[in-house]
Formats: sequence, C-alpha cells, structure tokens
Amino acid sequence: MQRLRVASKNFPYDVIVGRGAWRVLREFPQDGYTSTFILTERGLWRRWGKAFCRASGLRNPKAVWVPEGETSKSLRMVERVASQLLAEGADRRALLIAFGGGVVGDLGGFVASTYMRGIDYVQVPTTVVAQVDSALGGKTAVNVGAMKNLIGTFYPPRLVLAEPLVLSTLDPRAFRSGLYEVVKHAILAGPSLFNQLERCLDSFRPADAGTLGPILARAAKVKVEVVGRDEREAGRRRVLNLGHTFGHALEEATHYRRFLHGEAVGWGMLAALQLSQRLGLLGAAEGERIARLICRVGPLRPICDLMPTRVLNLLRRDKKAVGGRIHWVLPERIGKVRIVADVPPRVVAAAFCDVQRADGHE
Amino acid sequence: MQRLRVASKNFPYDVIVGRGAWRVLREFPQDGYTSTFILTERGLWRRWGKAFCRASGLRNPKAVWVPEGETSKSLRMVERVASQLLAEGADRRALLIAFGGGVVGDLGGFVASTYMRGIDYVQVPTTVVAQVDSALGGKTAVNVGAMKNLIGTFYPPRLVLAEPLVLSTLDPRAFRSGLYEVVKHAILAGPSLFNQLERCLDSFRPADAGTLGPILARAAKVKVEVVGRDEREAGRRRVLNLGHTFGHALEEATHYRRFLHGEAVGWGMLAALQLSQRLGLLGAAEGERIARLICRVGPLRPICDLMPTRVLNLLRRDKKAVGGRIHWVLPERIGKVRIVADVPPRVVAAAFCDVQRADGHE
Repeated sequence: MQRLRVASKNFPYDVIVGRGAWRVLREFPQDGYTSTFILTERGLWRRWGKAFCRASGLRNPKAVWVPEGETSKSLRMVERVASQLLAEGADRRALLIAFGGGVVGDLGGFVASTYMRGIDYVQVPTTVVAQVDSALGGKTAVNVGAMKNLIGTFYPPRLVLAEPLVLSTLDPRAFRSGLYEVVKHAILAGPSLFNQLERCLDSFRPADAGTLGPILARAAKVKVEVVGRDEREAGRRRVLNLGHTFGHALEEATHYRRFLHGEAVGWGMLAALQLSQRLGLLGAAEGERIARLICRVGPLRPICDLMPTRVLNLLRRDKKAVGGRIHWVLPERIGKVRIVADVPPRVVAAAFCDVQRADGHE
Repeated sequence: MQRLRVASKNFPYDVIVGRGAWRVLREFPQDGYTSTFILTERGLWRRWGKAFCRASGLRNPKAVWVPEGETSKSLRMVERVASQLLAEGADRRALLIAFGGGVVGDLGGFVASTYMRGIDYVQVPTTVVAQVDSALGGKTAVNVGAMKNLIGTFYPPRLVLAEPLVLSTLDPRAFRSGLYEVVKHAILAGPSLFNQLERCLDSFRPADAGTLGPILARAAKVKVEVVGRDEREAGRRRVLNLGHTFGHALEEATHYRRFLHGEAVGWGMLAALQLSQRLGLLGAAEGERIARLICRVGPLRPICDLMPTRVLNLLRRDKKAVGGRIHWVLPERIGKVRIVADVPPRVVAAAFCDVQRADGHE
C-alpha cells in the first residue's frame, strides 16, 4: 500500500493505492460530518458495499444510485442527485463518497463541488482508469450533448482510496482499457516503469491484486507528481493529454459506442507516435518500441472504416484548443514529451492515415 | 464613481460603482481573450446594449439570450448556454460578460465557473439588488426544483461594473425591492449610512443616477468589506444573510410568486427584529427605528394569510442550516448584528406571529 501526497492549492490530500487502501478511511475524521452519502452504481455496491463498509468502518451510509454508463455524466443527473441529497437531509457539512469508475467519480466530484457551493468528498475508484488517472487530481465534469466534459470544475477530494481487490470483478475488456492509461503514464514517466511494463504486462490479471497494486501505485504517482506542479492545467499538466486529442475525436466520431475511453486513448497514442515521427521529433526505433507496448495491451476495435475528414474536423473542436490552435502532446522518447502547437493539418492527416493503414493491414 | 477593491483568494478584482462605470471596461485587457460573449435578456440589451458598447469600447460581442425571470436560473439553462457558447466557438480563453440582474448574474457566474472548468467573466449588474449585493462577492448559483441556489460555486468575476444610469428603466417595484438590500447593508454598516438613508430614502428615484450613485457605492462597500474578510462564508460573511432566513421561507411558501427577493428580505428583516427583541438582544426603541426605515421603502404584499406552521417548517430546510441548526442573524443595534444558533422554535414562531399580526392590523 502506498501513500502519495497531492499538494493541492486548497489543501493537501492523500492518495492511497494498494491492498488495504479502504482501511485508511478509519483515520479520516468521519465524525466531523453531519451525514455520509455514497454515490455509486447498484450492482457494484451490491458486490462490494459490505466489504467496503467492513474495511472502512463506515456505518449506515445513505446510498444514492447512479445508472451505469456515460449518459449518467449529465446535468440532468446532477439535478437528480442534488435533489435526493437535499431530500435526505444533506447539508453543507455532509460528506459524499464517490464509489465507482470514471463516470461516478467525475459526476460525484462535480456534485460535491457545486452542492450548496461545495461539500467535501472522497474518491473510491473501482476501475483501472479511475485508480491511476481520473479519480486523482480534482478534475470533475459532466458532458453536454456530444461534448465530453464540457462543464466541470477543479475541486480536489479530501482523500482517494484505490483498492486493487475491487478490480477482480471488472470485465476483461474494461480492465484492459485501463491499462492503456497505465502505459500512457509509463511513456511520460520514463524507462523504469516502462521497462517494468514491458516485462510483465502480459501477466496482469484483474484478480491478481498482489501484482497490480505496486504497478498501479507507480502509475498513480506519475499523475500525482504532474498535478502537484500544475493543478489547473496551465502548462505542465497538459502532458497528461497524451493520446487524448485523437482519442476524444475517435470517441466522438463513433458516438462513444465503439471504444472504451482507454481504447480510444490507445489509438490516440499510436497516432501521436506517428505524428511525432513525421515531425522528426521521435526516432523510428523508439517509436516502434512504444507502439509495440501499446499494441500488447490487447486487440483494439478497428478505425480503418472511419472517414478521415470527419475525425480531423472533430479535432478542431477539442476542448484544449485555444484560439483554434491544438496543442499536441508528442513523445520524443520514453520519459519525454513535447507540447507542439501549429502542426500543419496535412501532417496530422498523414499521421492519422498511417495508423488507419496499419489497422487495415492487420 | 467609486472603485472598490475586493481581496479575493484567487485574485483581487475591482468593483466600480457610479456614473461612468462602464467606461472602465476600456482599461480591461479585452485583447487577451479569444472572443467575448454577452449573456443578457433581449429587452434589456435592446434598450442598453448600444450605450454599453459605446461606453465600454466593446466591439461586436456575441449575444447569448436568457429569458427573463427566475426560471432561467436552472441547470437546463446552463446546458443551453454552454451548448451555444461551444457552437459559437468559445474556448478556455473566452470572456463572458453577464449583463443583467440577479438571475443573469448568478447564472452567468455559474456558467463561467464551469464552462471548460472555468473561464473569466465580468459582472455588469443592472438592478439595485445586483449592484449592491448579488453581483459582488463571487457567489454563483442555479435553482433545483423549489430550492433556490442549491447548486453553485464560489467564483469571483474579473471586474464588476455598476452603472446607476441603467436603473432608470427599472419598474418602480423592482427598484424599491432592491432598496431593502440597501437598508440591510445600512443596518450592518452603522449609523452613518443608516442616518443618510433616514434623511433621503423617500427621494430616491430610478432615474436619479446622480443621487443614487454615491448611496449605491456606500452600500456596495459594505458587502465588499465583509466578503474581503470571509469569501467562502465560513463565518463573518453570514451576517449578509440578515433577513434571508425568513425571507427564503416566505419566497418558498408563496412559490416565488408573491414577493420579489428584496421584498421577502424586507419581511425577513422585520421578523429578525422581533426575534432579536424577544431574545432581549435589541432594545424596543432601536428596533422600532430600524423597522420604520424598512417600512418606508414601500408597501409590502401581505403575509397575514400564510400558515405559520408551513413557513416555520420551511425554515428548517434553509441551506445555511448545519446539522439542523439554523444560524440567525439578529440585530443588536444599528451597525451590530449577532449570529445566534439554537433559538427555541416557540420564540421563532412568536416572532413570526408578531410580524403577521402587525401586517393584519395595517
């Protein structure tokens, strides 16, 4: 079990990753709150609720149910959850625990940041993506129409508890999808974590909490360190968007149906590698080595049937674009990325076609 | 024209009150933004848009229309406004100008605080309440169901421009309603502003910007000073809720139809005076003197027909209640209030009946 401290502008908080993480809630001043609410999905809570309460010492939390899936990340759901919190007596000193994956975490964080202008919350991520990425760093969000995360806040949790045991009930595809984000963090972090993944990626199993714990902790640490230096994404934090520019466009082009988020980021990283090579920033051998690790995570659903013009048009609407300029996060080598604006559209198009072609030939 | 500086935790910003305030936007670094959007109501903008653009030097802002009335303070409207901003190309470096009264200001502030996790905004309040109160201090909010301001954020504007000229087109009732908040600030501030209001309250006219400007600036200063010491309402800022505990309950009991917000606060202050006297905190003569000034603002729609039990039940749901305890803001004398928790419900009920009885006898 590893304890990582996040130096947030508002207050520092701990991220606990590894076996036994849930127990740390016992050290948390639960008595300082007038009531405790769990925001979660029914099935997940049915499977893990008892174990969580036993480990954390939580007594009789009130549950607020959220339907599974991305559509729950909406302002309508914010309204529903807020109404229920109010009806059940949540005041400004209530505590919200977001127990779930990225959807529950992003929605829960947003509700916490706005309910009565802000209540405290704890993140208990239950997927790989959430444990190494989305539950860390205090970004909250809901979607508006087709636009992911259009509405959101920066609002740090009081505590993050990532217990790998809970991953054992993930379906294999969701589990693998999260590993793309682990690989992303390894590309950012450098040879040590990257080499480790090269050695043991194929042996990762959802039920093998003993092996996963230390890897997840290392991956989480990459994010914690970046966020500690740039909480509000003014500069350095943007490196975390590696693979996300193309990734978001692919998700949107397929109406969020074909890919899980991590899978889209997998494709996005492959495209970023091509782009970086075409711009002469990344050598062929290093690019090939990174691509190989990405591909080892698992089979990706195809992109060769997508209209390039459609995907390329969607890029321009990226939330990170400022004044119409896209800021690309491009690997230079393992452990080093560069942020590049003003990449000529034809080079972007060529890089995307490289990846589509490779997909078509497989 | 007076320039007040607010010491916000995030960054300091200026509140400009008085004739010529709009011109100050010329000093603002407008060129640092990729685009500028005006959130406003159609009729208001038709009447004042040209004058505002002329004074402020704003060129071709894109307008986002909000229907008049409290129902626009909703998450549905947030969604609509955000979608429109996105469609018209607003990115993270866009500027939003909220041009209107409390509804536009609260909604605009909330949209600004959450659109792409926060863009800059400027408040241009166009009602008395907004100029001396709601546009200052960085509280943003929307309503959920019948619960006012259930969802919101603390998010300071970059600049507040309060031009009294714009009050000339307010209807007389809305104008008077705002004066209750001015009186509230005088009760908090002390004899100097209070005496001034006693001398000249009856002479205030919507079109008399010359007289109003200095008074509004003094009233705004009261709020600015309180907020500067307690931005997040941890303690001192709660004094601004004088009259609001009963006020909110009265608004809710009448489904926000009978009273304008300031009018409900007027009744709320009368009830707070009775409560303070019943608790022995406020002398009869001083209480009488304050009540007289409140009543001079204008006729208030009746409350004598309302069921006391209904109003008293609604009090308990007040957003400011913590652990079921209501924190009352009670005047001790002009210039001094005390925050009192645990007032026995029967004393609260008696104070409310005092006010109802006085209403019935008029």
